[in-house]
Amino acid sequence: MNDRITMTHGHGGAETAALIESIFMPHFQNPYGSTARDAALLPCYAPESAGVKPADAANPAMAFTTDSFVVKPLFFPGGDIGRLAVSGTVNDLLTAGAVPAFLSAAFILEEGLPVSDIQKIAASMAKTAAEAGVHIVTGDTKVVEGTGGLYINTAGVGYLSGPPVDFANAGPGCALLVTGALGSHHACILSQRMDIINDIESDAAPLTGIVSALRQAGVPLLGMRDVTRGGLATVLNEISTQYGLRAEIQEALLPVTPSVEGLCGILGLDPLYMGNEGNMLIAVDDAQADKALTIIRAQLYGTQAAQIGRLTEGKGVTLQTKIGGRRQLPPLRGESLPRIC
Amino acid sequence: MNDRITMTHGHGGAETAALIESIFMPHFQNPYGSTARDAALLPCYAPESAGVKPADAANPAMAFTTDSFVVKPLFFPGGDIGRLAVSGTVNDLLTAGAVPAFLSAAFILEEGLPVSDIQKIAASMAKTAAEAGVHIVTGDTKVVEGTGGLYINTAGVGYLSGPPVDFANAGPGCALLVTGALGSHHACILSQRMDIINDIESDAAPLTGIVSALRQAGVPLLGMRDVTRGGLATVLNEISTQYGLRAEIQEALLPVTPSVEGLCGILGLDPLYMGNEGNMLIAVDDAQADKALTIIRAQLYGTQAAQIGRLTEGKGVTLQTKIGGRRQLPPLRGESLPRIC
Repeated sequence: MNDRITMTHGHGGAETAALIESIFMPHFQNPYGSTARDAALLPCYAPESAGVKPADAANPAMAFTTDSFVVKPLFFPGGDIGRLAVSGTVNDLLTAGAVPAFLSAAFILEEGLPVSDIQKIAASMAKTAAEAGVHIVTGDTKVVEGTGGLYINTAGVGYLSGPPVDFANAGPGCALLVTGALGSHHACILSQRMDIINDIESDAAPLTGIVSALRQAGVPLLGMRDVTRGGLATVLNEISTQYGLRAEIQEALLPVTPSVEGLCGILGLDPLYMGNEGNMLIAVDDAQADKALTIIRAQLYGTQAAQIGRLTEGKGVTLQTKIGGRRQLPPLRGESLPRIC
Repeated sequence: MNDRITMTHGHGGAETAALIESIFMPHFQNPYGSTARDAALLPCYAPESAGVKPADAANPAMAFTTDSFVVKPLFFPGGDIGRLAVSGTVNDLLTAGAVPAFLSAAFILEEGLPVSDIQKIAASMAKTAAEAGVHIVTGDTKVVEGTGGLYINTAGVGYLSGPPVDFANAGPGCALLVTGALGSHHACILSQRMDIINDIESDAAPLTGIVSALRQAGVPLLGMRDVTRGGLATVLNEISTQYGLRAEIQEALLPVTPSVEGLCGILGLDPLYMGNEGNMLIAVDDAQADKALTIIRAQLYGTQAAQIGRLTEGKGVTLQTKIGGRRQLPPLRGESLPRIC
């Protein structure tokens, strides 16, 4: 690893993983968190220091997660940094199988930021929180020198009503679904940054409705992962590495909007490596796939859901291309894309 | 209020309060958080969305808090931004009466930051977390353009074993104690920023030991507040406003080290408005004050603890000066001090 931080350390791909594994994980080992999940799983009572056995880590009752948002521009078609900050943390709690309940909101404001921008962002956060059924209950504000920018951190607490959702429950043969078209958020931010005029909107959204509907219909969720930085290919590689499974996906089945496909064609980008902010990868039993898809597509943010492939024995991520070829998809590595979340 | 953010919005005084009250509070109203506390109080089971009555907000079982840390320099005598980030959130949980249990850690790294700095900071966080008896269980890393800086957000979850600590339980006649000398952290950072050579060290520390010792000795804690941005005068003004009490403190009783007093003399600063990062204001019954002080002074971070005055009927904050005068202390307003936490 480089001895100084570069933008590639922030893209959610191989370099980000190396940074976390070599620096943070050795120091922060504990029985509650895991690099295989976006949320830690906590017991719902006093810990060791209050006389309860640490073995209770085996019976988690809550999920706890955090995410910082540093996107530029602050406002973009389909959303803003505030909607992103609420949606991202809500979706991370959902992936653990928790019902999102409470968020914190911490703002780092740069000097010169218009107060009216903060007003709009706070309103957007409140609206998104109401949509997701969560309360923003605690916060913090700091001001730093700068050029009118803004960073938001949200941490979240959610409650588990059963065992956590974990790809450890998924196995060969499971269907892989995505709830939306690939790369929309990333393509939107990129278009804004490059002053490209098109109709691409960010998909930033809380996916509480989709997950609730699946639960209410009794569809067992065998694994969930938010498709964000690094895109679907990176997320699938993480799952492959963490759980010893192969993901086989088919190019012809991938939902990509014509606008995003067009932008990718012009810029030479691949939607498989482009992040979303309202798109969930879900593993379900093959027999449940059609039922699950019907339920997801009936939801506001699920109309473009698709089954994209399945899990098999082996390792790595394989793409069956439209022309019949097969190729391995590595995780994102070394690309210098703008910050998108 | 100015229509653009200025550094004064970040100092924890009147302008920060105005920003929070006018922008954030109207949007984020909820039954769990309060501007009178640094932590939200949560029920320990599923909320309304999972079928439990929201009235359970009246029976909190957990505290939840967040804080971002933007101090410059990252390393300073007595600590570093990592020690600060763990201590600050641990101390916020303590003020609510919770036993701190779990922290998140979210890093915003600027390009160019030496990886060895992150290594040192992570090690310092792990050490401080172990000292405080908490686990760092979830995290996030983002990279932004910049000049090698670093921001850390920590959110924290703690468990309540009884009713929350709240100045609502304090009343006229209560003794006001501080656990350490005023302004040490602020004076340390200021000295570093101004290249002043002295022996002033930051007091950044988790105060779990002090609070546990008081609890174990059966001293009822009638109110606790972390003395941070804005200093003791600002914290006392907040309590006065929120609970309708007057704080009467005596200049002769305020613990200030000779070094901090010397620096304040040279620079024309007042330790009453200078923040700490390991100093708790505690209200106890007058009859418990001596016992509490003896217990606090026996703790590692409590050797300079003092009773500084008491709560009375009325409003505002009154200082009895060494020469026998009395003056009102307003909250911090409009000063442009460097960021200290």
